[in-house]
Amino acid sequence: MKLLEDRIIKDGKIGEGNVLKVDSFVNHQIDVNFMNEVGKEFFRLFKDEKIDKILTIEASGIGVACITAQYFNVPVVFAKKTKTNNIYSDVYKGKVESYTHGVTYDIVVSKQFLKQDERILIIDDFLAKGSALLGLISLIENAGAKTVGAGILIEKAYQNGGNIVRDMGIRVESLAKIKSMTLEDGVEFC
Amino acid sequence: MKLLEDRIIKDGKIGEGNVLKVDSFVNHQIDVNFMNEVGKEFFRLFKDEKIDKILTIEASGIGVACITAQYFNVPVVFAKKTKTNNIYSDVYKGKVESYTHGVTYDIVVSKQFLKQDERILIIDDFLAKGSALLGLISLIENAGAKTVGAGILIEKAYQNGGNIVRDMGIRVESLAKIKSMTLEDGVEFC
Repeated sequence: MKLLEDRIIKDGKIGEGNVLKVDSFVNHQIDVNFMNEVGKEFFRLFKDEKIDKILTIEASGIGVACITAQYFNVPVVFAKKTKTNNIYSDVYKGKVESYTHGVTYDIVVSKQFLKQDERILIIDDFLAKGSALLGLISLIENAGAKTVGAGILIEKAYQNGGNIVRDMGIRVESLAKIKSMTLEDGVEFC
Repeated sequence: MKLLEDRIIKDGKIGEGNVLKVDSFVNHQIDVNFMNEVGKEFFRLFKDEKIDKILTIEASGIGVACITAQYFNVPVVFAKKTKTNNIYSDVYKGKVESYTHGVTYDIVVSKQFLKQDERILIIDDFLAKGSALLGLISLIENAGAKTVGAGILIEKAYQNGGNIVRDMGIRVESLAKIKSMTLEDGVEFC
């Protein structure tokens, strides 16, 4: 999606440890008009898939998921991150490793909100090594629901998480795929 | 807002410790169509206030803030919760006490995203003792910006946070105000 690539070039910042910061329009300040263009694009890509529900993960996935859900006319469910294993009952659980923050945490979704045979579209802002996405896919699997696909804003293609998930037979659509990224040369897209 | 009161009666659940659970449409699963009605109502209430930006707090405020922002045609900024005091620089900081979870945490917003003299509308899902709202107001104050008002989905009026903020001269509009709530008698609105 050219609009997103242009925006990353214009407003993205490469920080320490080769972190791409897009916090002026994606994950701290949210440009809601821009997210509507993103939502329309996800709808164009997945509109024939009979989506029942959009699943995302707190916190930065929630904005883009809600805006996108308007086009599909479905509810959003967001998985909650928790370090406290025991306080939730009646939940589906997954495990996510955050390489950026160097922590592992559980993600949970109440069993009420993921039902057998539902067709689920995952929406998230970033895909790198794929840990969050794999965690969400395992929640959906545990519920007996079906992962119809994943709509991702920015995929760091060089970290291979996208291909791991594609090799599982799951459709992954990333609106910007980063081939390489350095402080010196900036961002190069696939 | 009758639509919200009816929905709370229909789908809200009173849990242990007199917690009102609205996680089937507000803060775990999000009914995006319903949130559009909420957004329209916030716009009706605040449309003459020349809002520059909507401020909320992760995670459950983000959905309603993003949907609402579409009516105002402004960006959303969400304050991040953090227990680690030192990793953020160039941020405005506030303190929030969560009575539900029995913890105190810092909230931060990057100085880039709150500017002097900006007119800020706060949007959040719950208002009880007012700790989160007061934290957000102090961030805005630190930035030299102006809190134009606060749009709240559900105010627990018996916990008095709303009145503390109103007594500061800040306009607080809550779409449902709960007068009392017990397992036996259910929810009574003001």
